[in-house]
Amino acid sequence: MSATAIVSRGPAEHERRHQIVLSATEHFRHYGYKKTTVADLARAIGLSTAYIYKFFDSKQSIGESVCSNCVGKISAEARRIAGEDLSAEDKLRRIFRQLARDTADLFFHDRKMLDLVAASFEEGWSSAKAHEAAIQTIIEGLLREGREKGEFERKTPLQEACRAIMLTLQPFFHPYLIEAKLDTLDEDAALVASLVLRSLAP
Amino acid sequence: MSATAIVSRGPAEHERRHQIVLSATEHFRHYGYKKTTVADLARAIGLSTAYIYKFFDSKQSIGESVCSNCVGKISAEARRIAGEDLSAEDKLRRIFRQLARDTADLFFHDRKMLDLVAASFEEGWSSAKAHEAAIQTIIEGLLREGREKGEFERKTPLQEACRAIMLTLQPFFHPYLIEAKLDTLDEDAALVASLVLRSLAP
Repeated sequence: MSATAIVSRGPAEHERRHQIVLSATEHFRHYGYKKTTVADLARAIGLSTAYIYKFFDSKQSIGESVCSNCVGKISAEARRIAGEDLSAEDKLRRIFRQLARDTADLFFHDRKMLDLVAASFEEGWSSAKAHEAAIQTIIEGLLREGREKGEFERKTPLQEACRAIMLTLQPFFHPYLIEAKLDTLDEDAALVASLVLRSLAP
Repeated sequence: MSATAIVSRGPAEHERRHQIVLSATEHFRHYGYKKTTVADLARAIGLSTAYIYKFFDSKQSIGESVCSNCVGKISAEARRIAGEDLSAEDKLRRIFRQLARDTADLFFHDRKMLDLVAASFEEGWSSAKAHEAAIQTIIEGLLREGREKGEFERKTPLQEACRAIMLTLQPFFHPYLIEAKLDTLDEDAALVASLVLRSLAP
């Protein structure tokens, strides 16, 4: 489909797409992602399979939209913290803790979403990549801010420091790692944030 | 079974146990862990299920022994590097790279072992815990050495620094994370090692 055709769908089509994602989210929450087919979903929503395929080209692309909504709330909260009137150090500590907690909350309130979000990370879906990119942008902004304020060292190339910090955040991104370390999650996030801040000392 | 009973089994029993683990390793390599039952294993090795249960109380405990052998090779190599005549900094960098590479090699040479080792990490089996403990002991030794030589700062409590470093190593422990980042694994390990070393600067 051409870009023009997508644009011409207009707000009504956008609204229908959104409704399918909301219904799919509820359906996956009850029955899990892996066991659900597009036909199951169509039946549950009361639409034809063909109609759903007008909006999504595969089950995975529906799953990606569902995941985007879930993880979008997490990055929005991180962005809110980054905008607060605090030192870059404080904001970095808070973002580590918040990422760990929000990710844990999301997965354990919606237990059935676990296989979906885990698959999105393991298989490198666009929703998982977009989430990592969103967090990376926030971290990069914080690094710039801390460097400008003289809180952080400036010798290490910014991109190098930023990518390394993203790697230290991995244990707080992945559902299975979160699950394995649930008892010590807050403490672990604080420990890694402190290590990262020692690495950033001028 | 009492401790005395275990001790009295002697070397012949130990040898039989070892043979079962070797056979189970080969079997899991061909057919995967999840799909294999203890009965399948007994049939393939030519033993009775009851005989296997004399040595192992569950399929998981056989799996744990298989995993211990696999990951034991990785920690042995890290221990070898820690014993070399190099600066603590160099040894830390090498250990990060080696852990990432060895873990990747192990899993991707033995593709069928992936579900076994992944399960051992996700479900917190004794073999996974022992592996983490072994690596933690090596890291702690390196930290002490670096502090004594004046290479590393001494303000942060040793245990805190050590636990935080273990958390930064998570992306190089877990099969699914390794798999997701395979293309940039060496570079990622080097980036995280450099960040950790900046955090350790006196």
